[in-house]
Amino acid sequence: MNQQYPSMLLEKAVGEFAKLPGVGRKTAMRLVLHLLRQDTAVVEAFGNAMITLKHEVKYCKVCHNISDTETCRICSNPARDASTICVVESIRDVMAVEATQQYRGLYHVLGGVISPMDGIGPSDLQIESLVERVKGSGVKEVILALSSTMEGDTTNFYISRKLEGMDVKLSVIARGISIGDELEYTDEVTLGRSIINRTLFTGTA
Amino acid sequence: MNQQYPSMLLEKAVGEFAKLPGVGRKTAMRLVLHLLRQDTAVVEAFGNAMITLKHEVKYCKVCHNISDTETCRICSNPARDASTICVVESIRDVMAVEATQQYRGLYHVLGGVISPMDGIGPSDLQIESLVERVKGSGVKEVILALSSTMEGDTTNFYISRKLEGMDVKLSVIARGISIGDELEYTDEVTLGRSIINRTLFTGTA
Repeated sequence: MNQQYPSMLLEKAVGEFAKLPGVGRKTAMRLVLHLLRQDTAVVEAFGNAMITLKHEVKYCKVCHNISDTETCRICSNPARDASTICVVESIRDVMAVEATQQYRGLYHVLGGVISPMDGIGPSDLQIESLVERVKGSGVKEVILALSSTMEGDTTNFYISRKLEGMDVKLSVIARGISIGDELEYTDEVTLGRSIINRTLFTGTA
Repeated sequence: MNQQYPSMLLEKAVGEFAKLPGVGRKTAMRLVLHLLRQDTAVVEAFGNAMITLKHEVKYCKVCHNISDTETCRICSNPARDASTICVVESIRDVMAVEATQQYRGLYHVLGGVISPMDGIGPSDLQIESLVERVKGSGVKEVILALSSTMEGDTTNFYISRKLEGMDVKLSVIARGISIGDELEYTDEVTLGRSIINRTLFTGTA
């Protein structure tokens, strides 16, 4: 045991918090001591919420968004336009687009973007299943809503090649979002507008 | 359920994280999605470390420091100088002083400082038990090592009145630490020196 810590249990809890991205040992200590001052029920709710999520979380078999059910609430909603699919990188991006209230179609969560630097290739992403979705049914438009980065552009291009020759309109959200910015931090007005002003995909940003 | 969240389990976990001080909902979401990408065992270790700590943590019956045993490692160490007690606000301050490796006496953790603004009075702190400790045995010196704030000074003064007339030397750590600074953020050299250069308590800072 590290001699600095008066308790092994405390050291263990601090160590677990300090594993989180952006959380150092001082912050971890603050958070743990904060929780320690709370009632047992509060601490149990905290610990179990995360464990329950991990055990019981499902991913929509259609769009791969996080879900409490086999098919997510968006995919199973008959009021949504099933002929339009918005391709996003992550669950957070679905939430960001939903928050704009400008989009009534469905989603497809890739689970990342192609990034050779991080060892992420097309086969690590939900690209094949996107192609199957487009092939299988009456999808009229695929909107590419990836971050405006090198990796996002590469992924856009890769998807466009995969969908080549299929009877589907391919568009990208308007580049109202600044080059280099992450999608999830774009303000809702800009993001909403960039969905409305989407342009035909030509292979270049 | 908030329509923004695709899953109630996710919303619950994010909500629990967002209750932590200094953690907003965006950060909470990032942390939860990070954990969700880890193995089940990692998530269980995280959740259970906190729950186990809360269930099994003990406080030393002598100095009120956090401990895995009835009497903490410091109080039960015969090599430590039992005639000197260093009075600190919190567990973190014990760790800060220990890290200086300049102190070989025992501690007394008050659990806070007197702060009428926050509704914390002397009876909410471990002051009576400090008086009992000093009364009971061969304590020769009490070192006041509280933060150099209004509340710290008030608490110093209150303790000095409580110990008045007892055969014990009362000292405060040298004010090498800047006025208004919190003890735990002081660098180890300054803090170590302020312990060595402690001065007799006269009632004024």
